[in-house]
Amino acid sequence: MTGWLGIDVGGANLKVADGSEFAHHQPFALWQRPDELAEALTGLLQQSPACEAICATMTGELADCYETKRDGVLHITNALSEAAGDRRLVIYAVDGSFQSSASTFINPLRAAASNWHALARFASRFLPNSTGLVIDIGSTTADIIPVIAGEVASQSQTDFDRLVAGELVYTGASRTPVATIVSSLPYRGLQVPVAAEFFSTTGDVQAILGYPLPDDAESADGRGFSQQECIDRLARQICVDRESFNLEDAITACQYILPHQLFPLEMAALRVLRSFPSGEVPVIISGSGESLARQLVARLPRTTLVGSLGEQIGEVPSSCAAAVAVARLAMEQFS
Amino acid sequence: MTGWLGIDVGGANLKVADGSEFAHHQPFALWQRPDELAEALTGLLQQSPACEAICATMTGELADCYETKRDGVLHITNALSEAAGDRRLVIYAVDGSFQSSASTFINPLRAAASNWHALARFASRFLPNSTGLVIDIGSTTADIIPVIAGEVASQSQTDFDRLVAGELVYTGASRTPVATIVSSLPYRGLQVPVAAEFFSTTGDVQAILGYPLPDDAESADGRGFSQQECIDRLARQICVDRESFNLEDAITACQYILPHQLFPLEMAALRVLRSFPSGEVPVIISGSGESLARQLVARLPRTTLVGSLGEQIGEVPSSCAAAVAVARLAMEQFS
Repeated sequence: MTGWLGIDVGGANLKVADGSEFAHHQPFALWQRPDELAEALTGLLQQSPACEAICATMTGELADCYETKRDGVLHITNALSEAAGDRRLVIYAVDGSFQSSASTFINPLRAAASNWHALARFASRFLPNSTGLVIDIGSTTADIIPVIAGEVASQSQTDFDRLVAGELVYTGASRTPVATIVSSLPYRGLQVPVAAEFFSTTGDVQAILGYPLPDDAESADGRGFSQQECIDRLARQICVDRESFNLEDAITACQYILPHQLFPLEMAALRVLRSFPSGEVPVIISGSGESLARQLVARLPRTTLVGSLGEQIGEVPSSCAAAVAVARLAMEQFS
Repeated sequence: MTGWLGIDVGGANLKVADGSEFAHHQPFALWQRPDELAEALTGLLQQSPACEAICATMTGELADCYETKRDGVLHITNALSEAAGDRRLVIYAVDGSFQSSASTFINPLRAAASNWHALARFASRFLPNSTGLVIDIGSTTADIIPVIAGEVASQSQTDFDRLVAGELVYTGASRTPVATIVSSLPYRGLQVPVAAEFFSTTGDVQAILGYPLPDDAESADGRGFSQQECIDRLARQICVDRESFNLEDAITACQYILPHQLFPLEMAALRVLRSFPSGEVPVIISGSGESLARQLVARLPRTTLVGSLGEQIGEVPSSCAAAVAVARLAMEQFS
């Protein structure tokens, strides 16, 4: 019997891992079906190796089915308790401590959005002296976290703090709508305003430019990511279709979108780099958007890419990195 | 028995009107349920006064359930034919002509996105000498159309042409996502990057600033437009909640968002105004976003607001103005 399972309850995905080889994630639209969360978590545990204890982290409390983060944490913790049943349940807090569900009911906000913290502590083990930057890019957001001697070197307690500090950038490798990145696109010598609609996403941009797509990529229209499907979605963004928008037009558009997406990431990373007074800063990248993270690091001064979490722990566990991290940290804490 | 009914098949709404007092609109998420369109149209006709003939216009062909606009027009025309049954059916074309469904199957693109053309011809009757600007703002888009002596003074044939010309601006009074308008928001002395998510919309902005809300307004989370509900949605945009974001914060945010929304409208209107070489240009406004249109006109040079279509034909018909327009134009053409 495995000792611990780690669970990461996001707004769009549920992830579970045992801290070594087993890891699994499944889409779950929390904002649409909050009442089904306990059931979904129970199902997730049934598909996982048996365990005696569960360590959870979450970001799902920001989903707009909850009036406040407090409500969200309470609801998610309830669902976790229900799914855990008789097993021990601890929640990873944003200060790096582990708290019981009872403590979480008293101090819910300490459990809000703590997954980045666990991930950074865990990933830093693959940096020399456990010191450097951890850059995790997922489908929707990017975390840029300074770690010094294995400890998170950030004053941030909340996602808001992290947005302000540049440690959280709300852009990702697949779900980010193109219309939130650019207000116009180049097309055959014209600069055309884009439709302010959720027609195409950064997944289309990565696919058209030939980068590997995150394995959890979902498209704007629910169709696949074939070249033609991406072209169709990008065309719609300027109110045309495949009859007047071809692969070359799509490449031109994506070559314009990508630097607009990378620019705020670059500015944020430059701010976070100030945590390191001088010298080269080692970087480890992770998340389903590792490829976008590589594109970012290639633009940064005084950074050295050490490797990716995917290379270190395998692709599937890496795509559930926060779940792996809380499983491992809990095992070490409570062994 | 009424002679004609006008129908406007949009991507999110179906509208019907008899050209005088009767008008009705209902939400219909075409992109989610294209196969149910014929049934929905049949139901719409059953709720309407009996008629001998139907004149239709559409914009729904851009919905992302269709691979191309051509496919969309064909599918929508099929659904209209099915719903019309034995009644005469004509489709308003973007050159101002009326074509049979048979002609539409041969030349589908002439029927794509023609509603603005019919609306402008009809609304111009309320301008002195039928000359001036028609500014129609709906939930999602804005049309800025020059009309001279009752005829549309535009070279545009497609929505793409109109985007490029400034005659179509993809911003509206309720559905436009805040994250497509601004990339950061002011909050208690900080400028905070916004989450690139569909958390809040221009409906929240209008409501918080005390403007009347479009009657077809739908919120980002499906909740209502009470002050607290709007505050909750706007708070989420910078990853906070009502515990640290109050009405004053919401007003500050909205006072920042509104000019960012009006600016591209203003630039587009200035371009379209060049159709009128000199002198004051009369303007008539229409659409469910009449209030936003008023805010726009207040910023424009050498324009005189003559009135609104709502004042001229009543609020309900005005919210279905394109359906009213095609009903009236068809009646006159075929009487």
